[in-house]
Amino acid sequence: MWRQNNRTYNQLRKVKISYNLFGYAPGNVLFEMGNTKVLCSVMMQKGVPFFLKGSKTGWLTAEYALLPAATTIRTQREATLLKRNGRSVEISRLIGRSLRSIVQLDNIGEKTILVDCDVLQADGGTRTACLTGAYLALEVAEQYWLERDIIPESIIKDALAAISVGVIDNQVYLDLDYSEDNRAGADFNFVLTSSGKLIEVQGSAEKTALSWEIFEQLRQLACKGIVKLLHYSKRLAKDNNQEKGQLFSLQRRGIE
Amino acid sequence: MWRQNNRTYNQLRKVKISYNLFGYAPGNVLFEMGNTKVLCSVMMQKGVPFFLKGSKTGWLTAEYALLPAATTIRTQREATLLKRNGRSVEISRLIGRSLRSIVQLDNIGEKTILVDCDVLQADGGTRTACLTGAYLALEVAEQYWLERDIIPESIIKDALAAISVGVIDNQVYLDLDYSEDNRAGADFNFVLTSSGKLIEVQGSAEKTALSWEIFEQLRQLACKGIVKLLHYSKRLAKDNNQEKGQLFSLQRRGIE
Amino acid sequence: MWRQNNRTYNQLRKVKISYNLFGYAPGNVLFEMGNTKVLCSVMMQKGVPFFLKGSKTGWLTAEYALLPAATTIRTQREATLLKRNGRSVEISRLIGRSLRSIVQLDNIGEKTILVDCDVLQADGGTRTACLTGAYLALEVAEQYWLERDIIPESIIKDALAAISVGVIDNQVYLDLDYSEDNRAGADFNFVLTSSGKLIEVQGSAEKTALSWEIFEQLRQLACKGIVKLLHYSKRLAKDNNQEKGQLFSLQRRGIE
Amino acid sequence: MWRQNNRTYNQLRKVKISYNLFGYAPGNVLFEMGNTKVLCSVMMQKGVPFFLKGSKTGWLTAEYALLPAATTIRTQREATLLKRNGRSVEISRLIGRSLRSIVQLDNIGEKTILVDCDVLQADGGTRTACLTGAYLALEVAEQYWLERDIIPESIIKDALAAISVGVIDNQVYLDLDYSEDNRAGADFNFVLTSSGKLIEVQGSAEKTALSWEIFEQLRQLACKGIVKLLHYSKRLAKDNNQEKGQLFSLQRRGIE
Amino acid sequence: MWRQNNRTYNQLRKVKISYNLFGYAPGNVLFEMGNTKVLCSVMMQKGVPFFLKGSKTGWLTAEYALLPAATTIRTQREATLLKRNGRSVEISRLIGRSLRSIVQLDNIGEKTILVDCDVLQADGGTRTACLTGAYLALEVAEQYWLERDIIPESIIKDALAAISVGVIDNQVYLDLDYSEDNRAGADFNFVLTSSGKLIEVQGSAEKTALSWEIFEQLRQLACKGIVKLLHYSKRLAKDNNQEKGQLFSLQRRGIE
Amino acid sequence: MWRQNNRTYNQLRKVKISYNLFGYAPGNVLFEMGNTKVLCSVMMQKGVPFFLKGSKTGWLTAEYALLPAATTIRTQREATLLKRNGRSVEISRLIGRSLRSIVQLDNIGEKTILVDCDVLQADGGTRTACLTGAYLALEVAEQYWLERDIIPESIIKDALAAISVGVIDNQVYLDLDYSEDNRAGADFNFVLTSSGKLIEVQGSAEKTALSWEIFEQLRQLACKGIVKLLHYSKRLAKDNNQEKGQLFSLQRRGIE
Repeated sequence: MWRQNNRTYNQLRKVKISYNLFGYAPGNVLFEMGNTKVLCSVMMQKGVPFFLKGSKTGWLTAEYALLPAATTIRTQREATLLKRNGRSVEISRLIGRSLRSIVQLDNIGEKTILVDCDVLQADGGTRTACLTGAYLALEVAEQYWLERDIIPESIIKDALAAISVGVIDNQVYLDLDYSEDNRAGADFNFVLTSSGKLIEVQGSAEKTALSWEIFEQLRQLACKGIVKLLHYSKRLAKDNNQEKGQLFSLQRRGIE
Repeated sequence: MWRQNNRTYNQLRKVKISYNLFGYAPGNVLFEMGNTKVLCSVMMQKGVPFFLKGSKTGWLTAEYALLPAATTIRTQREATLLKRNGRSVEISRLIGRSLRSIVQLDNIGEKTILVDCDVLQADGGTRTACLTGAYLALEVAEQYWLERDIIPESIIKDALAAISVGVIDNQVYLDLDYSEDNRAGADFNFVLTSSGKLIEVQGSAEKTALSWEIFEQLRQLACKGIVKLLHYSKRLAKDNNQEKGQLFSLQRRGIE
Repeated sequence: MWRQNNRTYNQLRKVKISYNLFGYAPGNVLFEMGNTKVLCSVMMQKGVPFFLKGSKTGWLTAEYALLPAATTIRTQREATLLKRNGRSVEISRLIGRSLRSIVQLDNIGEKTILVDCDVLQADGGTRTACLTGAYLALEVAEQYWLERDIIPESIIKDALAAISVGVIDNQVYLDLDYSEDNRAGADFNFVLTSSGKLIEVQGSAEKTALSWEIFEQLRQLACKGIVKLLHYSKRLAKDNNQEKGQLFSLQRRGIE
Repeated sequence: MWRQNNRTYNQLRKVKISYNLFGYAPGNVLFEMGNTKVLCSVMMQKGVPFFLKGSKTGWLTAEYALLPAATTIRTQREATLLKRNGRSVEISRLIGRSLRSIVQLDNIGEKTILVDCDVLQADGGTRTACLTGAYLALEVAEQYWLERDIIPESIIKDALAAISVGVIDNQVYLDLDYSEDNRAGADFNFVLTSSGKLIEVQGSAEKTALSWEIFEQLRQLACKGIVKLLHYSKRLAKDNNQEKGQLFSLQRRGIE
Repeated sequence: MWRQNNRTYNQLRKVKISYNLFGYAPGNVLFEMGNTKVLCSVMMQKGVPFFLKGSKTGWLTAEYALLPAATTIRTQREATLLKRNGRSVEISRLIGRSLRSIVQLDNIGEKTILVDCDVLQADGGTRTACLTGAYLALEVAEQYWLERDIIPESIIKDALAAISVGVIDNQVYLDLDYSEDNRAGADFNFVLTSSGKLIEVQGSAEKTALSWEIFEQLRQLACKGIVKLLHYSKRLAKDNNQEKGQLFSLQRRGIE
Repeated sequence: MWRQNNRTYNQLRKVKISYNLFGYAPGNVLFEMGNTKVLCSVMMQKGVPFFLKGSKTGWLTAEYALLPAATTIRTQREATLLKRNGRSVEISRLIGRSLRSIVQLDNIGEKTILVDCDVLQADGGTRTACLTGAYLALEVAEQYWLERDIIPESIIKDALAAISVGVIDNQVYLDLDYSEDNRAGADFNFVLTSSGKLIEVQGSAEKTALSWEIFEQLRQLACKGIVKLLHYSKRLAKDNNQEKGQLFSLQRRGIE
């Protein structure tokens, strides 16, 4: 299969990470993978959901939404419809659940970390881009909170990144764009830690059921892809001194 | 770990399948796994969602809900809150997506198959119980439609069943009940076909990230569990003559 | 007029009462009258509506809903529509109001008794079936609360049952099923105590206005029907020892 | 019991009927009973609910609401809460159902008669005042439609009026005001035709169950009250020439 | 241009002010300008919005709605649609904002003044009629609160009135009715104090952009119109002794 | 008063205009004024609102929303609350109304132009920034539609820009930022055409009523500010060749 920009089956799309471009969140990342562009913000607020009241632990929750013009056919706003979009609800829950598994919220008191992921442009893989971008924004926010003694100690237990893989005509592919995703018979999202351990896997063989051999190929492809992604993210996070408005980005033709 | 009813780590809970007990759906199954009891109904209606209008193909959609008294702490009705429950939305989408992957809707015209899964009693594994129960109700409904020439030919391409597996204290377990699920550090749901192929896998390591060795143990446990589940379902489906009100059930102490 | 199962005009449909089959409510009854099958659950929660805050008295409220497949043409879920169904709201209010008139909530503190009535199969008379079933579930719940000192003394002041009556072609009929209800020019619901006193009457002559002579016939028919209904319910309540999962039922061909 | 303005137990409150004071409905009545003041409008629109599409018959529907300042404690707007008020839903349904029973909509084509009842001031008996007022507005609207050939023939089959009755300290009373209603142990609403036939009865013994003897007293009291009410309404309707802005009213100290 | 009732371009429509006709608000005004009739009520409640909690100051908020029959084509209720109407939201905010600018709420404690404006009949200029009517109702309410020591001192800093002006065929007009408003290329609403100072101006040139010369003409026309309006309102307020049910009104053929 | 970056009272904040950075709209502009950053997209869809069905003319509508992290205190999503935000509704209507006054939609058929304005960062003047940005995006979209014969001829009748002005301590100021807006006693928004004519003015003196002399100063300040803004916008529009992803921006220290 021919891929845009001559990507090989195991190549990531061009990654770009820009810090603190928009808004007032302690942590904000504009994360781009090819033409998929997502804006991730991390803030903290007093209060926890009712099931944690009195527990003295914190909580983390996430919200995912598409801007109307992020898709070629305009996406109607949930607010206008006064109706939640099922897909957005599902992805919001995935992002919150995955991030909660790598943070330690016992010592921050009854506060809630709010993760907002808004898709500015969608070209496949928005949920994994949001997860990776949200993690990076969380890192920046954590440093902000530590420097101001808003939290007593680091809350991030492990680094996280996410990637999609899929099967088109019996061949596995890494990091599908929208047109590839449309042709894929199966589409899996992997969320892994920096040590390669599994946080979440979610996927379905929408057209035909999948053999476990193919699943194993997908798994290995995802694992290797995430290692690369984390590698670049880390390098960036190290360089980044997070001054408001300053922009750090890694642009490559395509990361093999 | 001690399990209720002395179940071993790889034993299913007691399965009971009752056909056409309640309501007017062409296919209706009361599916019980231990104390988890779900009512699955399958009906067909004219019309398809807007994105299929004019396509002459059909659609399948599913809705999942808990009755208020299905949980020890009463679950508020979504209708009373005028707000969809995020978890229910996510599970509804999983059920619809999985069932769509095993049905062929090209020849039924612009009709929608509606799958309703209502949890009468929840003791862990409600989403997998609903998936298995909904599949069985779909089989009954298909026979009903075929006998009355409502559909021209069989629409079910493959049998499906689903099961949950989890990790507690580094040990893998099949078919978690609610108290086990609460203690589990990781919880995965597998949806497989009768030939053991993968339709959907969805799971997360909520407490600590999981090694791939443990994931492989979970995968094997799930595969074996689903083979047993499908075996019993098939036997029942064969015996079942689907007369309204008649009850077929398989009760065992625990299916090893 | 010919009635199904050769019922005479003053015969009830077959009654079946099953205790504690589904869910975790202290009181749960699956109440069946012919093909009408309703599941009634009674739970208690801390808190009262705002207009009782500080009053130290309790409250009782009820919710009525149809499962989608309970009707031959599928009923859309209120949660999906994000809109309350007017008929369900009206019936919920009737059930709550009637039950409140026979309970004494002064001594239970600021707690709310929640009555959930879910129609699993609708064949006419669902609101009266829910009222009768909910009363029976309340009896079971009361015993549960008394045994565990959750309430200091009995709260039920009087027994209650409800029945529908109607007029078809100038002839009165007891306990209409759906097809009879459809043909009826007038349809009344009576809620009475065990001593035959009136709790609520609600009915309308939808096709032509009714003479008071016919109303009197309807009234007498309803009173006699309720006496029978209460008689059977009582007998069952006496036998019932309410162990979880145990099933007590009375099945007759038709109770004259 | 002492009643305001020295009313006897079987006296109506002061009635006032003003035609076409507000708005553009073909029929509009400001109906006052004592301090209860309701504004009833009747309009007609093209279209019928989905269940009548293609039937070539018309439909009638009603909506009831309280203005915020109509009660001594301000009533929150349903629009602000984005939530229907259960009581308003119930009363809206009652008004629609009762009026439908006295109109013949077969020959008006697929049109809907919309009845709007807005309570400007509430002092008990708002639902019966709305019913009586809405009927009077319907009469005016019918004349308007007949004069303009909007309907081919009269659609009103029978005159209708409604009144509330109640029991306070074992004594029956006609036409309760708010303070009386609050003290009443039972409260019944009767909707009757001009010939004294029953259209709807709806009531509950909220405090203690009622004997049938008392019910009979209530019934007779209501019947006589409605005869008086219809008598005055008719006299007014005869005089009324329905010019926009003109006001016809009947004011008495209390109609014995 | 010919105006109804031979009004000149700078003439107000007939004004009528009736006090305390409907409901239980401390201040209630039925304000009529020609055929536009609005009912304005002012009440006070404990509590303030979250952003004022703990501030010990009060708040004022307003709600605007149309009764369904207030327009020639029936206006659907927001409650039925479960959706706020954008125009109503905008006007509610305008009324609240303007009134807040002339009241001093520092000394009333954490209470909220609720202003309800319900349009009974709409013939253009409903928002300005509501503003003027609401101000008059506020004056009555203030007197009521002062007499009962509900507020320690006067809270109204300045008198307020509002009027609409517009441009039709390059000619400016005062106080447009609905048919004039429909033909107007530009439509401005002015809210002024008794000393002629500006509280709010809001307007748009919907058809063609407006020169500043025309705007100046509109401004002067509005200023003069408001002076007249305030003059009459004041005269009425002085006479008014606010007894419940008593009616004070000023009726003229047209106020030049 | 001291202004940030030593701005004089009549200086605009730094303006930056970036074309087609995000999403798939034919016209997209990231418009920045100082720290206020808004993303404006213009798309076209088939269909018009019900009141234009059959008219063969088009329509234009706008939606305004804040991203949660656009404000220092997180703004809750309307979708999460299932409730429209009153301020957003008001601003959406302003943007739609103003843009409609400068477009000619008679010849585009029954299509709707959708204008989406999403605030990425709010520092005062978001509504005027959205109006100016939306106009620029409309220009780009028009060119796109003309080149592809989607519209037969130009639809923009006149150029438009908007600016806020305010009064702080009796001194007028152009283009208020958030901290200035907070201190301002009066705040007006002017929407003008390139020829300096008035499209919309909207403003209120929230603290004390304003003399007409001050209003005149504000008006002149706004007019001059808008001339500058339009000058820069035009220069940019001329240079812009609208290739996807290409960025044109004008950055200055502050435009005097």
